[in-house]
Amino acid sequence: MARWEPNARDRLQQAALDLYGERGFEQTTVAEIAKRAGLTERTFFRYFADKPEVLFSGAGALQEFLVTLVAEAPDSAAPIDIVASALEATAGFFHERREFAAQRQAVIDANADLRERELIKLATLASAIADQLRRRGIRDPAASLTAEAGIAVFKVAFERWVSEPDQQDLAKLIRESLGALKAVTAGN
Amino acid sequence: MARWEPNARDRLQQAALDLYGERGFEQTTVAEIAKRAGLTERTFFRYFADKPEVLFSGAGALQEFLVTLVAEAPDSAAPIDIVASALEATAGFFHERREFAAQRQAVIDANADLRERELIKLATLASAIADQLRRRGIRDPAASLTAEAGIAVFKVAFERWVSEPDQQDLAKLIRESLGALKAVTAGN
Repeated sequence: MARWEPNARDRLQQAALDLYGERGFEQTTVAEIAKRAGLTERTFFRYFADKPEVLFSGAGALQEFLVTLVAEAPDSAAPIDIVASALEATAGFFHERREFAAQRQAVIDANADLRERELIKLATLASAIADQLRRRGIRDPAASLTAEAGIAVFKVAFERWVSEPDQQDLAKLIRESLGALKAVTAGN
Repeated sequence: MARWEPNARDRLQQAALDLYGERGFEQTTVAEIAKRAGLTERTFFRYFADKPEVLFSGAGALQEFLVTLVAEAPDSAAPIDIVASALEATAGFFHERREFAAQRQAVIDANADLRERELIKLATLASAIADQLRRRGIRDPAASLTAEAGIAVFKVAFERWVSEPDQQDLAKLIRESLGALKAVTAGN
């Protein structure tokens, strides 16, 4: 029977991120991650399907959170503001995990396969948001464009937040990024 | 010495697309493509590095074309209009290859790896356009957001053009898609 290990998931995740950063993602084995965390490989696979999963296990919850907020937004709100508000609401989640987010981004930036997977994650998010906007009665191309624009706004804001240590407030950066998008599409 | 084969590249590309559509991308071999085209495998590899290359060989030229147009646009134009005009200018290229574009899209839609590669192509395009905008003196986040918004506009217009046979004019769809983006970001 498996012994209960306190914080096994967090310990594995931290050990993996540290090793991906030190040795590179490709060069790190699950055995090494488990050893660094003081746990077994078997325990690793109880929490994560594989090495990339350590970096992407939050994607499903993030998508569900965003889709729920889009679904529950008041009818009076403009679609782009519904999406921007939902994205701003993720800031609290990321603020609690700033160090994790920065380490994760460095690992992803250094590996082409992981960058691809990150792109797929964002495209899947855009597509889930567009679906939910259509369920609210917003038609295409507005639904798709609103979702794609929202994800572009988030991507630009998140990159700034994660790469500039003096930028503390992701929600503020998302609002600024939306403001910049509104300015560029207005032709300013 | 290699014998000269008239239109070898086009014949290989058409044979590959037909087979990808009939049997699926994964199930098709280079030997089968060459045979269908009445050519040798050796000839295939003179034109394409591998099976996906048949679908993505135009990406480099498309990117160069767009980046050149962005570089040469008049200083007076607004960044989003520079990008939209460059994208509209690709319409002629795609109009000449409508049947190819439709077959290619169906193959890509049916295969997760190819969908990923298409996403990467679009992200690379956005990033090249953003670089060129920065070279024109446009700062971030405006440069990144303009490029991302432009690619979103193109993606939505292209999907419509390729999937709706009665939609003939890609440039018109790009203008409509840009209009829809401007409307959604204005909060309408």
